Amino acid sequence: MIRIVEVGPRDGLQNEKTILGTEEKFRFIELLVGAGLRSIEVTSFVKAPAIPQMADAVELYTQVSRALPETVAFPCLVPNLKGYETARSLGVREIAVFTATSDTFTKKNINATIDESFLRISEVAEVAKRDGVRVRGYVSTAFGCPYEGAVDLKKVISVTKRLFDLGVYEVSVGDTIGVAVPAQVRATIRALKSEFPIGQLAMHFHDTRGLAPTNIYVSLEEEITTFDASAGGLGGCPYAKGATGNVATEDVCYLLSSQGLETGIDIKKLAEASRFILSKLHRQTDSKFLRAFFNTGIV
Amino acid sequence: MIRIVEVGPRDGLQNEKTILGTEEKFRFIELLVGAGLRSIEVTSFVKAPAIPQMADAVELYTQVSRALPETVAFPCLVPNLKGYETARSLGVREIAVFTATSDTFTKKNINATIDESFLRISEVAEVAKRDGVRVRGYVSTAFGCPYEGAVDLKKVISVTKRLFDLGVYEVSVGDTIGVAVPAQVRATIRALKSEFPIGQLAMHFHDTRGLAPTNIYVSLEEEITTFDASAGGLGGCPYAKGATGNVATEDVCYLLSSQGLETGIDIKKLAEASRFILSKLHRQTDSKFLRAFFNTGIV
Repeated sequence: MIRIVEVGPRDGLQNEKTILGTEEKFRFIELLVGAGLRSIEVTSFVKAPAIPQMADAVELYTQVSRALPETVAFPCLVPNLKGYETARSLGVREIAVFTATSDTFTKKNINATIDESFLRISEVAEVAKRDGVRVRGYVSTAFGCPYEGAVDLKKVISVTKRLFDLGVYEVSVGDTIGVAVPAQVRATIRALKSEFPIGQLAMHFHDTRGLAPTNIYVSLEEEITTFDASAGGLGGCPYAKGATGNVATEDVCYLLSSQGLETGIDIKKLAEASRFILSKLHRQTDSKFLRAFFNTGIV
Repeated sequence: MIRIVEVGPRDGLQNEKTILGTEEKFRFIELLVGAGLRSIEVTSFVKAPAIPQMADAVELYTQVSRALPETVAFPCLVPNLKGYETARSLGVREIAVFTATSDTFTKKNINATIDESFLRISEVAEVAKRDGVRVRGYVSTAFGCPYEGAVDLKKVISVTKRLFDLGVYEVSVGDTIGVAVPAQVRATIRALKSEFPIGQLAMHFHDTRGLAPTNIYVSLEEEITTFDASAGGLGGCPYAKGATGNVATEDVCYLLSSQGLETGIDIKKLAEASRFILSKLHRQTDSKFLRAFFNTGIV
């Protein structure tokens, strides 16, 4: 069984220009649940003006937690203690925290060095532990940074270790700008799994240069069992305008099912969830699989 | 060293709606030669009204053979003896012949059963041998047929064998509708290489569902050294309207270079050849790598 963490409603929508209504986002999440997704990142508790698409985080999470099944995990991104407190007041049971391998990237992204990001994360992780809230960690730019270029594997290891030391249950290793190539993916996973339990590592690929499915194929060979993905390939790449971002959940499911691997996801229902949200965003999908499916109806 | 057979000017353009002038096609081929491609399928000697994009085959090949280096192979597709005679009168030194694994497909495509297609091919192969013209064979629908669905691996083997028996120097095994998945690719190549020399087998993938790079990755693991590809991903998929067709040569080169494999191709120059022809076709590329390159200038 391979676990998919659906990041479309948060990581995907965050990079879409069209601002959607809360009802549309809720309906999207409801369709994702109906398609069999069991871990769906709902929103991000940032200061309202920072990311306009996330301005309705409180309303959206409230609706989701009231109406959708408790058996599904609905993690939310939390940048700091203030965001955590809001999340906690809504009964959020799982949060995600964020850092990267490059100071320039964290500086530009969250106005903090890596060390400063860990100060925020450790504050959050401490109270989360007290509250029994699960914490997931993201390491961005693990395969390359838009500002600093190549990334030292030692940096990936050390940042991952610091996250685990703070008690995160899983680290998602992210190819934020979609530059990872298969040999690098294999080397990175081998280095990581020599230090950490493979079952606590997730891979987060962007399909900016079309190699996400190949990188996932290699990750499977290296025994990774959790992948982040975004329905319909929602989300662009802010570092390569006009290029694609997150790998589409459909692409991941198509590859996995061709390998005989179970996900519990109904790919046709998933495609309908994507069709719904893409129509609200007035955009086409960048997923080749999904385009072919929309045109032929054949999986 | 991995060999790329560039099929953009023939297989790619044949599936493009915008009919180009001979000068534009010639310039495209000239740019491809400049980028380092050493095997470029130029055109197809079919009856003029059959494929409007190929109506200028005689003029185009004449220009190419006069102006471009003899060190580059410029194969042409030849459907029958009449086409061969035209090609021969122009001094064509390499031809390609075509069959498939499914009678329904060959019936709809060239109005012949597989057996009838072999009658035509054997006539052509015989005179080509006499003339010292090299012959390359295509097996279409080797991974799935738009009409008959799944394809029996025994059929792929038997059709490939019949082509080799007629003296072709290489067989290109084609995923005409882009349904091949990695496990199937591995099984197919393993079956083929147990019967035929691996160095005489080429893989021809379409990226209709986004798995072409992964299928190429698996092919490399199985020791395939020749791949067909189409610059810029020219050519759609006639069996899934709006979907993508041939894998882009840039996508193949990007993957190969990330694996440390040489092709002799300058990917930036190749991208410029694609940019030129895409502008003449008034269309965007479906290659994610190329889109990111056009937007960032970074390989």
